[in-house]
Formats: sequence, C-alpha cells, structure tokens
Amino acid sequence: MTPPRPVDLAISARWIVPVEPQRVLADGVLLVDDGRIVALATQEAAARDYAPRESIALERHALIPGLVNAHTHTAMTLLRGIADDVPLDAWLKDHIWPREAKFVTPEFIHDGVTLGAVEMLRGGITCCSDMYFYPDAAAHAYDAAGLRAVIGLPVLDFPTPYASDADAYLRLGLDARDRFRHLPRLGWMLAPHAPYTVGDAAFAKIVTYARQLDLAIQTHLQETRAELDDAMAKYGESELARLDRLGATGPGFLAIHAVHLGPGDRELLVRHGCSVAHCPASNMKLASGVAPVVDLMSRGVNVALGTDGAASNNRLDLFSEMRLAALLAKVSGGDASALPAATVLRMATLGGAMALSMGDAIGSLEPGKQADVVAVDMGEIDDAPVYDPVSHLVHVASRERVTDVWVAGERVVRERTPTRVDVPALAARARLWQQRLR
Amino acid sequence: MTPPRPVDLAISARWIVPVEPQRVLADGVLLVDDGRIVALATQEAAARDYAPRESIALERHALIPGLVNAHTHTAMTLLRGIADDVPLDAWLKDHIWPREAKFVTPEFIHDGVTLGAVEMLRGGITCCSDMYFYPDAAAHAYDAAGLRAVIGLPVLDFPTPYASDADAYLRLGLDARDRFRHLPRLGWMLAPHAPYTVGDAAFAKIVTYARQLDLAIQTHLQETRAELDDAMAKYGESELARLDRLGATGPGFLAIHAVHLGPGDRELLVRHGCSVAHCPASNMKLASGVAPVVDLMSRGVNVALGTDGAASNNRLDLFSEMRLAALLAKVSGGDASALPAATVLRMATLGGAMALSMGDAIGSLEPGKQADVVAVDMGEIDDAPVYDPVSHLVHVASRERVTDVWVAGERVVRERTPTRVDVPALAARARLWQQRLR
Repeated sequence: MTPPRPVDLAISARWIVPVEPQRVLADGVLLVDDGRIVALATQEAAARDYAPRESIALERHALIPGLVNAHTHTAMTLLRGIADDVPLDAWLKDHIWPREAKFVTPEFIHDGVTLGAVEMLRGGITCCSDMYFYPDAAAHAYDAAGLRAVIGLPVLDFPTPYASDADAYLRLGLDARDRFRHLPRLGWMLAPHAPYTVGDAAFAKIVTYARQLDLAIQTHLQETRAELDDAMAKYGESELARLDRLGATGPGFLAIHAVHLGPGDRELLVRHGCSVAHCPASNMKLASGVAPVVDLMSRGVNVALGTDGAASNNRLDLFSEMRLAALLAKVSGGDASALPAATVLRMATLGGAMALSMGDAIGSLEPGKQADVVAVDMGEIDDAPVYDPVSHLVHVASRERVTDVWVAGERVVRERTPTRVDVPALAARARLWQQRLR
Repeated sequence: MTPPRPVDLAISARWIVPVEPQRVLADGVLLVDDGRIVALATQEAAARDYAPRESIALERHALIPGLVNAHTHTAMTLLRGIADDVPLDAWLKDHIWPREAKFVTPEFIHDGVTLGAVEMLRGGITCCSDMYFYPDAAAHAYDAAGLRAVIGLPVLDFPTPYASDADAYLRLGLDARDRFRHLPRLGWMLAPHAPYTVGDAAFAKIVTYARQLDLAIQTHLQETRAELDDAMAKYGESELARLDRLGATGPGFLAIHAVHLGPGDRELLVRHGCSVAHCPASNMKLASGVAPVVDLMSRGVNVALGTDGAASNNRLDLFSEMRLAALLAKVSGGDASALPAATVLRMATLGGAMALSMGDAIGSLEPGKQADVVAVDMGEIDDAPVYDPVSHLVHVASRERVTDVWVAGERVVRERTPTRVDVPALAARARLWQQRLR
C-alpha cells in the first residue's frame, strides 16, 4: 500500500466545476501542491491518497477556475462612473482623454491598478489583460496585489504624458518588460491602441517586434460602426483586413470588441486562429453594438470575456459579464438556446486563458495547471433551490458570493478580504484621487 | 421656540436619494413616524427639530425608496433555474406547466412566496405585483414576511388544480380578496393570464368585475412575436386592440412585457394612460425581444420594471433589472444617452408604484408616504471612487449591498437578515421541494 502523498492544500467543496472536462463533481476535493493542481478526487479517495498540510471545507460552495478578464484598462478604475450616458467618441474626446492628459502619472497607474486588482480578486478574477500607460508602474502594483496579469505595452501615434511617438512607446514598453519579465505572474503583449490611432509604419514595427520577441498582439478592433466606416473610407478595407495585410494577424492575435465584422473579417479570424475579447457591458453602455459571438464560436473562433475599463462599465465584474453575454446573445439572435451557461463559464475561464496564450497554464481545474481557484458561496437563501450549479454561477450568483481566491496556490482573498493589500489605506488613496479628478 | 417633535425613527445616511424630487441629499436625515415619512432634513435641522426614539447612522450608505417589482410569479422561486436555454413556448409547455399541474398546491404557494419574499426583501424590493395561483395562500405568506404585495387574481380558460374554468378562478380569487382585504400591506388586481389563454367571454366578465369592484387589470401582453402573429390570424387585430374593444384598457391597466407593439398599440397605451411592466432579463433569456420602452416613455407611458418569475430569470433582483434596462435600451436603440441612471431608478421605484395605482403611497421618499426605505452600502472598496451615487446604484451596486430594509417604518431586514422569517427553516423547506420537483 502506497503511503498518502503529502500536499500543501486540500479544498473540499459542495461542487467542483473544473470547466475542462465539462462536468460537475459533487462533494469533491481539489488537491494543490507547490502552486499547482495535483488532482480532483472524491472525499474517499482524497482521504486515502493524500496527506494535506492544510485542509479547507466549503460545504456551501462551488469551486471554479479563476476567471480571466480578457480586456481591461485597470488603472481607469479611478475614473469609475465619471461620465455615463455618452457614446464612445464623445466619451473619449470630452471626458477621458482630457483627464488622462492631465492626471495620468506612474502614481495614478500604481494606485488605479491596485484598486482594480483588489476589485477583480474579490470578484473571482485571477488574471487580467491590461492595456494602459506606464506598464512598469502597473507591473509593480500587480506583483504586490498578487493578481496574474498580461500587461499590454501600449502604442499610439500621438503623444501623451507617457510617450511622444510610436517609437518612444515601444522603447518604454519593451524596457519595462525587460525589467519585470522575471516576475512569474506577469505576461506581456504588444498593445497598439487601435487601427485608427496607429498608422501603418508603427504597425510594421510592432509586427517585427512581435516576431522577434515572440510577443502576441492585442488591439481594439472595429468597436463602432463609425470606426469601420472611417477605415473603409480611408484605406478601402476594414481595419482587420489592413492589419492582416500588415502581417499582424496570427494565432496569438487578440481582437478586442470586434463588434462590427463583415464576412471577410470573420474568415480572417478563423483562418489565423485569432481570439476575440467580447465586452458586452461596455458595448451596450456605449451603444457600440452587439458582437457576433455565436457566429464566431460556431466557426471555431475562441471568444473570451472582458470588462473593459471601469470608466465605461462601471465595474470589473466577470459574473456580470457572463450573464450579460448569455442574455445578449439570446435576445439579439432570437434564440433562447444560444450561449448556455456552461459555454459562458468556459468563455470566462478557459476562453480567456487561450486568448492570452495561457491555455496550458490556467483556465481550468486540471492536474498540472496553476492553482488559480475561486470559491463561490451558493448556500444563501437567495440561491435556493439549486437544480444546476453551473446555471446558478451564470444566472444567479453575483461577484459578492466569491469568498476565497487562490492564485498559484496562494490564498490572496480570505473570506472576502484581500490578504496582500491594506484596503483602508487603498480606500484613502482612492478618495484623494477622487478629489483631484472630480 | 418650538420643542423638538418626537418621532419613531431617524436614519442618517451618506446620501439620500428620494427619487421625487430628482436630487441627492448628501449627509441627510430621514425622519419616520407611525410608519410614514415625516421629513428629509439636514443633520443640523434634524437635530434641532426632531426627537427620535431610535436613531440609526449609516455613514457609507445611500437611502433609496423601496424598489417595486411590477411583475413576478413569486411562488415560482421554487422552480429557479429548473429549465434554462429554452424559448417561451417550449419552456411553458415542456417544463413549467407539467410541473405546475403536478405540484402546485397551497403549500407550494406558501413556501414559494415566502422564499421569494425573503429574496426580494433582502434585495431591496419592498413591494411586488404577483400573478399566480392560490392567492389566499400567497396572502398569508406575504403578511407573515412583511413584504407589501399586489396580488393578481388569476384567470385562465383552462383547468388547473386550482380552478376548473374562468368563473371558478374569478370566484376563488374574489373570495380570497374578501377574506384578506383587511391586511394593510396587500393590494389586489384582476390578472387574466394572457389574451391567448383567456377568451372574450371571460374578459367581458373581468371587465365587469373591474368596474364594479374598482379593481385594476394586469395581463401578459404581446410578449413574443409568435403570440402577436397568432392574435392577428385569429382575431384580425392585436391582443391589445382586442382588449381595448372588450373595454379592458384604462388608467389602471398594466401591460406586462409589451415587447411587440405596433403603432396602434402604442397609441392605445398613451390614450388610456396604461402602464407597462418591462422585464428585461426574462425577455432576453427567453429571446422574446426588446420592449420599446424609450419610445413609450417619450410618449408619456409609465414604464415600470419587473423580474418575472425566478424560473425564467433566474433571480428576483431589481438591481440587476435596472442595469439591464439601461444597457439594453442603449444598445438596442444605438443611443448611449438612452435611459440615464436617474430615469432607471425612477422606473424601479415611482414607476412601479404608479403601475400598481399606488403612486400616492409609495415609490419615493416624500413626506406623508409610507416609510418603505432601503439602505444600500456603497462604501466597499469595489465602489471606490463614487462620483455619482445614482450612477453607482444602477451600474455598480448589486443587491448584496442592501443591508437594511423598512416597510411601513418596520425594519424587516436588519444587517442582511430578515427579521420576520426563520431562514434556516425556510431553507429546509426549499430543499424538500427541490427533492420533489427535480
């Protein structure tokens, strides 16, 4: 008889929803060692085969993989709800860009990223893809908060307080990556802001760096009808066709929003194995439109979910995005069977991981993967009865039901409290910024 | 100098949002006496003019009027999430009606209404409009839980375990009203299920009773395109035109869903001063369509918000409906300025009160009205910063942020715990029903 294997942690739960394979394990145990998932087991097998140094019993909870927020601008959390009820173009030009020009500094980024990271962790998000300024300040903040993050290195053709032109953006971004690439929870992408703010010359350089450094590319793409019409008028082709011509498309390419897509655009996404970051709340709130995610997924395109920034949402809440994605797909397609709950949960976890080229490391509770795990309390009276826990995760649970969160096996949220961040001090910083920004 | 006036209760809060007038009172005090609102005052004026027997200070909270859920089938909470991803017709015929025929008894209604009432109260809903079977069992349950409710007396042309034909439904319903109309938190409406399940003869009787007894009428109306097409084929007119011909329309008429409305239908709603109960989550989940609420409101139609039943939602959560209403109106109309937050909050409070002919009694924090009050904690780190508390109520807050609820001045939820209902016993009843219904 083999002696029980010592492991760091055993979490038993009412339900375990590993996402891959698509099933629900009732009254199971998740075993974790050295930051990774060792096994999912029945209570009996776990007691027989493992000797955990720490055991946690969650009798009312579902354990799920950490949610992956495939698109956000984390530091913009300091601008949460500062301008509602305005379309994208006016929202950017009248409300956001002027404030960014005046206030965005490394200090702003550090505090905003910390605030957004805490909000995401408390809501069950264990990894985000961030596109904003001062990636070095962001890297510091993510590292301190314990959130996994893919940092998009921003590129624009116009100057901001952060950089003067595309070359400067690239140089600063790649410098930041060189300094912080040893941090194990951080990943890096090249993040040209959008085809309408980055010209052909800059895109050509981005493509070259992407190939040389093996970095994937993410960009806002065809978010509004006007943006697509402008591209057609200026270039005689869609933004995506132009990026394809410039060599930017490929398996790691992440198209953010991708609301307005012609048939040729959809074929390009399929052919190159690109991913899409679907941001339903932001697209609805800015009246941008409805991304054709059901059609894309039926063609095999990987679709992930994103919150976008808190300035256009106004929350970094993937529970809310899961439900919105399901409801929006059903009503916009006139098909109540569109995006069933299990599909939506997969988009928010493994779909996000794949979109960030991390499908082998995170996104599901499979042995060998990182132990990015979220416990969701589904034992409140407002949950009763629970016929199908996966349906409840999408249609009943709110992010407030997340009680505990692990990243790489480390408990970064314990009973709703972040373990690494001084929350009262953070709240005081947010109040200071609010006074300045108002 | 006048001595301070003794009152039952003073609640001071970071913000008071009375809805009418449309403003936000920072650091104000709400004074309550004998179940009614006496005044809203500054801290200074409250200390000078009133001598409260009880004082509560909520430094992180917004006080808002109790939310009014203008349409639900409360007892169906026992069927929460029992059948997802199915369109309305199949959902009713294959999943809901067979279970109702087998299981719906007064005991089911009592337990289901208690469960739904607790969920609603904890989520800041202080009044609901319910349409289901066994109104006497429902009346008992609402009275015990302390939730204000308008009970729709159901009428169908086909038999159920509750009644055999339209006459029997009417007789049973009116008997229940006679027995329980003394209960101060209950109101009553006539509730023919839908034009497609109630024929002309029964509608004629309903109209007669409505006039004789001064009862308003509520009915599901033109929820799906197929339903409207069937009506046109069968009657040569829309459902609403038919009901108008039968004399059912009028100022108290509440059209539930009202998704598919032609120009003539819209004019009828305007002309008769009817209200609409908009249920965005249910309409999206069942892929029924998008109700034209912005157009209706621009014509002066009162639009309220409803959750529909938990079987098609799957939550009785008006915070979620507020946000969905705003986002859906923006994206479906292509107008980011549609349904600003203050408008949506008004729909969920005063709009609901008016739809239930209770606009003089509830729906806003005005002196003389019932003290139906909800305290929403907006001091969590996930809320920071708060530039506009009304925006946060719609776009950031979840129902979990509701901490305390008063109905007619009685604290029915204290720090998230219902004060009148034994929650563990209720949870045990829900588990029993789940085992039977599965």
